[in-house]
Amino acid sequence: MGEFELLARIRAQLPQPGPRVRLGSGDDAAITVPGGATATSVDGLIDGVHFQRRWSTPEQIGAKALATALSDLAAMGAEAGEAYVVLGIPPDLDEDGCLELLGGILGMAQKADTTLAGGDVVRAPALTLAVTVVGHAQSAKELVARSGAQPGDTLVVTGELGGAAAGLLLLESRPEARSSFQPHNSKNDGHAALLARQLEPQPRLKEGLALAAAGATAMIDLSDGLGGDAGHLAAASGVGMRMEANAVPLAAGLDEIATAAGRDPIELAIGGGEDYELLAAIPAGKLDAAAAAVEALGGTELTQIGEVVAGEGVEIRQPDGVLLPATGFDQLG
Amino acid sequence: MGEFELLARIRAQLPQPGPRVRLGSGDDAAITVPGGATATSVDGLIDGVHFQRRWSTPEQIGAKALATALSDLAAMGAEAGEAYVVLGIPPDLDEDGCLELLGGILGMAQKADTTLAGGDVVRAPALTLAVTVVGHAQSAKELVARSGAQPGDTLVVTGELGGAAAGLLLLESRPEARSSFQPHNSKNDGHAALLARQLEPQPRLKEGLALAAAGATAMIDLSDGLGGDAGHLAAASGVGMRMEANAVPLAAGLDEIATAAGRDPIELAIGGGEDYELLAAIPAGKLDAAAAAVEALGGTELTQIGEVVAGEGVEIRQPDGVLLPATGFDQLG
Repeated sequence: MGEFELLARIRAQLPQPGPRVRLGSGDDAAITVPGGATATSVDGLIDGVHFQRRWSTPEQIGAKALATALSDLAAMGAEAGEAYVVLGIPPDLDEDGCLELLGGILGMAQKADTTLAGGDVVRAPALTLAVTVVGHAQSAKELVARSGAQPGDTLVVTGELGGAAAGLLLLESRPEARSSFQPHNSKNDGHAALLARQLEPQPRLKEGLALAAAGATAMIDLSDGLGGDAGHLAAASGVGMRMEANAVPLAAGLDEIATAAGRDPIELAIGGGEDYELLAAIPAGKLDAAAAAVEALGGTELTQIGEVVAGEGVEIRQPDGVLLPATGFDQLG
Repeated sequence: MGEFELLARIRAQLPQPGPRVRLGSGDDAAITVPGGATATSVDGLIDGVHFQRRWSTPEQIGAKALATALSDLAAMGAEAGEAYVVLGIPPDLDEDGCLELLGGILGMAQKADTTLAGGDVVRAPALTLAVTVVGHAQSAKELVARSGAQPGDTLVVTGELGGAAAGLLLLESRPEARSSFQPHNSKNDGHAALLARQLEPQPRLKEGLALAAAGATAMIDLSDGLGGDAGHLAAASGVGMRMEANAVPLAAGLDEIATAAGRDPIELAIGGGEDYELLAAIPAGKLDAAAAAVEALGGTELTQIGEVVAGEGVEIRQPDGVLLPATGFDQLG
């Protein structure tokens, strides 16, 4: 099957484009009418580096690629709009595999109100995805960069941390755990819930919009890990950050997996990465409204974990007063 | 050198962003204020498929990747705006090679008034580029899709065809020809000019804007070859196209290279691809103004090569009345 045939089959599966898209896939370029401001992010994902085909179905790989790209829009407080995907297909991924991967992308796109508005399909030595996402806001000042955190702001995170790292440990150490895992089942619990955090991450788009509207001064999504990502936020804002280790919300089941692997659960929560929760700085007077807005969405809660201070760097203090390194843990994921 | 360090070195080389860009590389997403309509295109390029590292320097690969992406914006009649690049780096491309490649991208970006507004750097088994370009127009109706050609319209092309195919033949058959080639030298002539068409293509952005303003009803850039790309235009517009083979403007020197290789020059001009000239349909009454607008730019001329007719498919007629196949030549490039 040639490139044009596969493209034709892919286009046949595309749903109706969203309201901003005037011309979708199939021309030299897509035409959109943005209005206001746009947030644009690109991510590259390569087999063996960002995902493992032995752990993930093509459908999960497609969904995760788009989800992690959309997570960057969540971190800007942007409304998701369009996605464009370059797909590099290796010799051992057949047409059904390509269409299954597309199905994963389209499933996540539908869930996030995102139009797959264009793409390119090329031959590649390893499965490769490059995902461009465009999000929207009424004006540039509604979008939240990393650079606006002020001393006195409170640091908050959505959801629970360490789940994706625990899921990765499970995949590495107990491959049989996958048998308990039901794809796309929000009722997964125990080990299956941890696997879902690793294999099927969800972008916190609504939470990002709510936090931006509530007055977040700086925001980032937790892809590298709380410690490292807080470091990016602190550096971009020219401030320091102080967090309490025992305030960090830990994923259910993390403790058991970490202990079995001889790891400290708090280190996994801080250094593990790939949770795709949001870390935001909120002025003190806007904290209650921000928490209420996130809780009203029904999906997750906001937890206060520290504060922004003058100075630089990230300190994470344990109950005994000992500081944890913000980075420098083993890279997981 | 880690990903973050390379990204920091790349960001240090970025010039000031263009006027629509409110936040450039380094945050979760770039922020732009488009105004009007945008045209967005993505392209994937992989070593061994879309370029050959033995023929091209990293700088040429970077410049060509952006140029061919921008060519899609030229074909929409869009003003170039922003570019985003995912760079997949193989083990045998060192830091200097990466920065040289970036230099090629930035050189082409400057030439085309385009801001490199974001990107991602990942490890990859082969050198991989995924380029997203965003172009702008006052409104969606100013942009030219493939689908508007009407029976009676005249078919025109910019520039001369077959040069890129001849350059590829030279690279394949006479590697020593490269010694006559001066990178970035607009005074290259003879073989060197043909190599430049293959190794250093230039997007026809100003010509695309001029043709759109002059009333082009449909437009496409010639990446696959005149025959195949005319077929895309005809299919999208629901019309037929009739062209005269001896009206097709041939690149200087094509005849000699084709003859030496036992090929028909007209077949190379029609089937060779990668010339990145523009093919447009123009209503008869607007033809003189379109030609004058393109010539006023000083870079190239417009040539009438045929007409749009009712029906379907592409016919290319030789002086003896025999039809040439519009596609089905050997794939070159």
